[in-house]
Parts: sequence; C-alpha cells; structure tokens
Amino acid sequence: MTRYLCAPDSFKESLTAIQAAQAMARGIKNADPDAEVRCLPMADGGEGTTRALVDATGGTMRTIDAHDPLGRPVRAAFGMLGDGTTAVVETAEASGLALLDPGERNPLVASSYGTGELIRAALDAGARRILVGLGGSATNDAGAGLLQALGVRLLDGCGRDLEPGGAALAGLDHVDLTGLDPRVRDVEIVAACDVTNPLTGPDGASAVFGPQKGASAADVASLDKALTRFAIVVERQLDAPIADRPGAGAAGGIGAAFLAFLHARFMPGVDLVIEQSGLDEAARWADIVLTGEGSIDFQTKFSKTPAGVARTAKKHGRPVIAVAGHIGRGVDELREVGIDAVFGIAPGAATLDDLLRHAADNVAFTTEQVVRTLRLGAGWRI
Amino acid sequence: MTRYLCAPDSFKESLTAIQAAQAMARGIKNADPDAEVRCLPMADGGEGTTRALVDATGGTMRTIDAHDPLGRPVRAAFGMLGDGTTAVVETAEASGLALLDPGERNPLVASSYGTGELIRAALDAGARRILVGLGGSATNDAGAGLLQALGVRLLDGCGRDLEPGGAALAGLDHVDLTGLDPRVRDVEIVAACDVTNPLTGPDGASAVFGPQKGASAADVASLDKALTRFAIVVERQLDAPIADRPGAGAAGGIGAAFLAFLHARFMPGVDLVIEQSGLDEAARWADIVLTGEGSIDFQTKFSKTPAGVARTAKKHGRPVIAVAGHIGRGVDELREVGIDAVFGIAPGAATLDDLLRHAADNVAFTTEQVVRTLRLGAGWRI
Repeated sequence: MTRYLCAPDSFKESLTAIQAAQAMARGIKNADPDAEVRCLPMADGGEGTTRALVDATGGTMRTIDAHDPLGRPVRAAFGMLGDGTTAVVETAEASGLALLDPGERNPLVASSYGTGELIRAALDAGARRILVGLGGSATNDAGAGLLQALGVRLLDGCGRDLEPGGAALAGLDHVDLTGLDPRVRDVEIVAACDVTNPLTGPDGASAVFGPQKGASAADVASLDKALTRFAIVVERQLDAPIADRPGAGAAGGIGAAFLAFLHARFMPGVDLVIEQSGLDEAARWADIVLTGEGSIDFQTKFSKTPAGVARTAKKHGRPVIAVAGHIGRGVDELREVGIDAVFGIAPGAATLDDLLRHAADNVAFTTEQVVRTLRLGAGWRI
Repeated sequence: MTRYLCAPDSFKESLTAIQAAQAMARGIKNADPDAEVRCLPMADGGEGTTRALVDATGGTMRTIDAHDPLGRPVRAAFGMLGDGTTAVVETAEASGLALLDPGERNPLVASSYGTGELIRAALDAGARRILVGLGGSATNDAGAGLLQALGVRLLDGCGRDLEPGGAALAGLDHVDLTGLDPRVRDVEIVAACDVTNPLTGPDGASAVFGPQKGASAADVASLDKALTRFAIVVERQLDAPIADRPGAGAAGGIGAAFLAFLHARFMPGVDLVIEQSGLDEAARWADIVLTGEGSIDFQTKFSKTPAGVARTAKKHGRPVIAVAGHIGRGVDELREVGIDAVFGIAPGAATLDDLLRHAADNVAFTTEQVVRTLRLGAGWRI
C-alpha cells in the first residue's frame, strides 16, 4: 500500500487548500484504490493560512465582533487549532486593505485595533500560543491600535490618549502599560513574516508599504516621522531598540509592536505553517508528496508553499510532484528546491473563468494521471 | 538505459506527427539524458498519413503536375517510402474538397482524375505497392476520373467518352479496358478506409457524403442513379458485384473503382499505418510507448491513432501514455484500449491560438514531466 501525502496551497479564487487536497485525494483513489492518503492543507502565511491550519489540525473557526481600520464594526474570524491552545490570527482579517473601498484608504488614521481585539478574543478562548499572519494591512500605526486593544495606553505630553492611526504617534510622549492584559505575558506569539523591512527610514513601513495603502509623498514623510517618534519612546521606556529590527516594518509596523511588547518570534510564513501543520512527520510517513498551487513559476522557489513542502519532503528523501492551474516560466529551476515534476491541470484552450470553475475536477484528473504514471514507472502494472 | 518510443499523430494545425514525436524526444532527453528514443510518426489514414509514413520510413515526397476536381492544373504530392517500392497517395491531395472554394463544390461534375494521375506517377516512380488514403474527396464519380487517368475508357451507347463527373455515369454503356495501364495488374493496392458504406442506396456515397460536397437532394437522387448505372455495367462486364461491398462508397465511390478494377485490399487507416510504419517491432523494442494527438476524448478509442498505437503496444505488454492539446470527455474509457494515462499540455488559461503556437514546447515540457514521474515511480531517483 502506497502512502500519499497531499499538501497543496489553496488555488486562488477557486479552491481552498483543503479542497485542493481532497481533489488530489479523489484522483489518487481513482488510480490506486488501496492508497493510504493524508490531506494536509498548506499556506504560506498569507491569505488562507488560518483556514489551512484549522483544516490541517481539525480545529475550528471563531468569529467575533471587532472594528475595521476606520473603527467601523466588522465581523472577523480567527482560528483555534485542533490542540485547543493554539490560535491563528491574520492582520488582514480585521485590519486589512480589502475591508476598505479604494477611496477610503487612509494610513494616517487607519488603526490596527481590530487585530488587537482578535488577539484578546483568542486569549479569552484559552489560547496559550498565538500564530499571527502579518501582511495585507491597511494600517501604518506601528501596531498602536493593537496595543490599545490589549490595554496599553499611548499618551501625549498632557497625558491624553492619542487618536487612532499612525499620524497621531507624532505626539506620543510615553506609554502606560499598567492596563496591559496580563495574559499577554504568558502567551507565546509566533509571527509569520516574509519581509525584513525595518520600522522607519527609506526601507521602513511608511516608505515601502505606505503608498499602496493610500499615502501621498507628504503622508509618507509625516508617517515615517511619527513612527520614529514611537520607536524613540518605546526604546526609552522598554529598553527595546525596535526601529532597525528586521520585520519591525511588517504590516504597517505591527511587527514592531509584536517585537517590543509581545516578545514575538518571527519566522517565514511557510515555515510557520510547516511547523504547525506537522508536515515534517507527515512527509516522513509518506512514500510520495503531492503539492500544488494556483500558479507556479520560477518565483515559487522563493518561500512559496510548494517549495517549502518540497524542502521538507526532501529531508526525508521523498519525491515531490506539483500540480498547478497555471505554469509560468522557469519551473525547471524548481528542481533545485526539490520539486521533481510539475503538471498543469488545464485540459486545453480555456478561459481563466472556465478553469477556475472546473479546478477541482481538473486537479483530480491530473493527479489521477500522475499516480497512474508513477505506478507504471514502478512496474506495478507493466 | 530506458527505451522510449514516441508514436504520436499530428497535432492538427500545429505539429506534424514527426514534429510532435521530436518534441516528445526532446522532453525525454531533458528528463533522462541516457534515454534511447525512437520517433515513429503516426496517422490514422486521413490527413497527414503520407507525411507520417514518409517520415517514419525515411522516404521522400514527390510532387507532380495534376488536375484538380474541376480539371484545373494543381501541384499534387505523393510519398515514396524508404523501401523505394511503396508509394502513398491520398485522394484528398488532387481530388480534395479543400481544393475548391465553397461556391465551386459540384459533385455532379467533379472528377477524381487527379488521383489517377498520382497513381500513374507512383507507377512511373517504380512503385510496386501503393497505399491509398481514401477520404476528403470533392468527387462523387465512383472513381471514373481515376480510371480514365489510368487508361480505362468509359463510353456511352454511341461509343463516345463520357464527360467528367458522377452525373455523366448515367449514360454509361460499357467500359473499354484495352488502354488500361498494364502495370496496374502487378501493383498491390492497399486502401486505408474507415467507412463501410456501399456504393449506392440510402447508405451509399451519394446519399451520405454527397450533401457535404454540395449536392442538393435532387443531385443526390441523380448521382445515386448514375452510380447505380456504373455498378450495373461494371458487374456485367467485369463480373464484379461492387454496389453493396463495404467501403465501395468511400471517397465518392472511388472505393468501388479500387475494388473492381484494381483489386485493392481495404483496411482501417490506423491499421494500415501501423502495418507500414513498423510499429509492432518498435513497440516490442520499447520499454514505454508515448503517443498523442491534438485532441483526445472518449471517441479516440474508435480507431483513432492513439488507440491503435495502444493496442499494438499492449500486445507486448508495454505501458502507454498519451499527451494531447485538448482533453475532452470520457478519457477514462481509453484505458479499455490500453492507454494508461493521459496528460494535457496546456500550461494554463490560454487561447487556442496561443496553444497552437507553443505546441512543440508544451509537448516537450509535458513529456519531460511524464518521464520524470515514471522515473520517480521506478525509484531511480528516490
């Protein structure tokens, strides 16, 4: 009996990672009815990470009332993994750019408060570890809102609480930690972070990510100044030099808040998912590892899911085959990271719409052919 | 060292069979530099059959001045295979529907004379065997023109030669074989024929194929009557009852002329190609057989090339994998004829135009992945 591990990322706009894995499993069973199959949905720390980890561990999604970047009510979800003590929170969920109309983008006032509410809810639910997916935020507030949601007070020279948003940090005089949720001290925070930008300066949060969140050149300058002020106050009060730390600039500076106040450990998103999902053990178990993603090209080797899966599989000497909705240029290079073969799932000339609609069947079909071919190679049917 | 046989059909509008085979070979070599590869271009007796057999045997294409269905000059080609004594002639070449503008179609007068000229040229070139691909003709003349080109006279009651075309056969009184090219008696004719229609009647050439060649209902009636007359005369003079013989109705009744005057042997097109190309021996040699075609679906099992290739491969227990530009419905059924796995070559959402333009690279890429997967299965790299 052959052991197959299905560990794909989601296929964007068509299949969640678990749906992709289940389509693969269906194809495998068609070709090899005696197969032992494990489905392990994967992600790269970005969109779909919570869902993938919840599905991989048999956890649950929890939804709460929170506030969006402009302070409006929003329903937001976090994941509680199968172990019952690990939560997953994505900054994009309550503080994401996707929550705003393009005309509403305003990083001067956008707040990460909602992400803090999600963390509080995770603590309320009994989380002892919180995995945080950084990225996709509409904010540039160095996590000020998040800290406020957890009880930190950010005060000006007159002892007044600052207004929400990054711009207000220019008036920061000191922070007051007396109200900080005490559970924060005992919780382990691991942040999925694929950028190394510092908090401030030409490579900082404001300069690099501000414009895509709606910041003008003048906004960038004032935001960078405001975040510099934040860094000075934090360093002075907490003895935590955060301005230049790699990743402090992630998610509009939320990275800095995690580093200074929550003692978070940062790691590349795909590595975090691999660690949490138990991929290593599953790859050791498997005879062959199947992965995939909506689109695969030479860039896939830079920390995208299939490359991470392949590196893990190769630790155990397992062959790795990937299927993809779209195969771009240079996939030959993926053999360097351990992806042995790559197959497209398109059955012929088709619009993207058609392919998205039939993605599950096409994944199943192609995986079936791959398994038949493996078995032919093995001589089982020759 | 693994032995790979590449035996695809052409990919319509993009690759000849030999181009498809060479693209496969390129993919194989990328995945398995030590591979032994044989390219055997295939066809199903229709378009591309001459080219495939010439390429498969190291033969040559010969071009002559001939006449099209309306008697106009046309350059027409036949193939001389590598053995130097076998020629290949397709009725579509000088007597084909593709030679006429839609408004010119007229099966009442269209003549198969040009096909007779090609046969004569093949005899001039030293052919002792002539393989004929029936089909695609614009004619409905029971091969009258073909016979005239070979020296047969078709005469009316006053001893005058008939005008060209099927309609004139209504006035046939007798045939005169004294001028028939004597070499015809010593040549072996094998016709590739995938239809079993009789010459006349409701399933005959006129009724079934006449309309697509431009015949009105009245034309069909008069053509069927004319061909009946032809059959009566031929049966009386040659003692050859041809009207009801399966295949007599092929190519506007050219089938009847081959049966009555040239003692042709009929066989399904793909079987003829398989016989002539040496596929059986090559499949025995190979460890694995790769085939393919522009489009593959459940109908492929009905005498299309990949199914024929697979049947031959399976006589020797060889695994068979097909690649195709388009994968249609029901390809699961192809396992019944021995095709073990089928892969599409499209790299994602794409127009037909795009796919046609990149067909060679896509065939090569997909074949490379297939071979990598076979080798993974075989554990050679695990």
